[in-house]
Amino acid sequence: MRNFRLCLCYDGGRYRGWQKQGNTGGTIQEKIEALLSRLLAQPVEVAASGRTDAGVHARRQTCSFRADTDLSCGELLALIRRHLPEDIGALSLSEADSRFHARLSCREKSYVYFIWNSPAPNVFYRKYSYAWPDALDTAAMEQAAALLLGRHDFRSFCSVTKMKKSTVRELRDISITRQGPMLRIRFTGNGFLYNMVRILVGTLLEVGSGQRSPGDMSRILEARDRQAAGFTAPAQGLFLWEQKY
Amino acid sequence: MRNFRLCLCYDGGRYRGWQKQGNTGGTIQEKIEALLSRLLAQPVEVAASGRTDAGVHARRQTCSFRADTDLSCGELLALIRRHLPEDIGALSLSEADSRFHARLSCREKSYVYFIWNSPAPNVFYRKYSYAWPDALDTAAMEQAAALLLGRHDFRSFCSVTKMKKSTVRELRDISITRQGPMLRIRFTGNGFLYNMVRILVGTLLEVGSGQRSPGDMSRILEARDRQAAGFTAPAQGLFLWEQKY
Repeated sequence: MRNFRLCLCYDGGRYRGWQKQGNTGGTIQEKIEALLSRLLAQPVEVAASGRTDAGVHARRQTCSFRADTDLSCGELLALIRRHLPEDIGALSLSEADSRFHARLSCREKSYVYFIWNSPAPNVFYRKYSYAWPDALDTAAMEQAAALLLGRHDFRSFCSVTKMKKSTVRELRDISITRQGPMLRIRFTGNGFLYNMVRILVGTLLEVGSGQRSPGDMSRILEARDRQAAGFTAPAQGLFLWEQKY
Repeated sequence: MRNFRLCLCYDGGRYRGWQKQGNTGGTIQEKIEALLSRLLAQPVEVAASGRTDAGVHARRQTCSFRADTDLSCGELLALIRRHLPEDIGALSLSEADSRFHARLSCREKSYVYFIWNSPAPNVFYRKYSYAWPDALDTAAMEQAAALLLGRHDFRSFCSVTKMKKSTVRELRDISITRQGPMLRIRFTGNGFLYNMVRILVGTLLEVGSGQRSPGDMSRILEARDRQAAGFTAPAQGLFLWEQKY
């Protein structure tokens, strides 16, 4: 059995997220596993660096799978590209060390959230950003973000209220940059809880619009209660951005 | 009657172009005229800097219309924004000199065509560019483009074969730039024939891929025959970009 590393990008708009859920269909994992199983005439299971929620995009999602084939990586990549739907792209395919696993070997991941911050709409980014027409105090947002950095129990920023596993994660960096009307918030860490980035963004937007003060962040972390944090920003602005191995 | 100048952007993907054609529906002009007529409770006719074909986008389309209203521009702009569909955006609205007409007063227009030139697909630009996976000789394309500049009879680059009006236009600039895998061709001129930019792009792509030599361009111009030029590049890569008044 050879072990492969496959990098994908996808527009999550019409999918129910990465991870298969029974036989309900509509997930990206099912699409990829069905395609590889058919092309390689054997059952193929695909691991990814992490899940993405329904509607969330991936600029880069690293995957791994084992298969028995004589095809070269170039041949298999061309085959995959020919059969993928237009909203999933195969960026690269290479052979990996037999111990490589897209989720277990991942050391760091980053997500980027895009906010179109202008009263004038941008129709071309409407499916890839969240439109926020009112002014945002990015200095206050940066102050708030600084309080989130480091190792914390992020239970307040998790949608699963009865999470039994550890909700401690390390947020290594949050960078807020603006290019014209487009605000971009990048989160880098060793792992993220369910809906964590979207709740962080919603809470930062409440700070940026003056509904909360930056100092609230420490209180929210301490509360360990989803009710203490802000709203969940919509999925379409969120991109799984990069992974480090 | 006050005279207004309205700048729009639109994703042309689901429209049959700018210009209304009888009562068939599905054009952007009809959408805008119906909306303004309803909001202002009077029949409103809207002129635009020029037509865009079915599927062609507008980063900026300057429009003008006359109407009798007491609303301020800010109030009317907010109303328009509230009622436009998500693939049409109102960028600005101002009051114009009574002689201003979006088409007749336009001195110069530019179009940009985007080509995603890589074997690795980009799913996020799939509706806003034309994917060309094979290598392109951009130096040859630039040589070819240089032969098109100036005042010429562009009949060979027009889809309407029995055009009775003049097919002479002045192409003032063609710039070909690359940012990573994205190739961007910008055309600036005093006016463009039906499908002209898309046929120019198709012909330049045939030069870039070695199917034609750059020198062919002079022969094609002289032929005054649509058959002499290359294919019509697909609508989704084309953006009406800017207008000068």
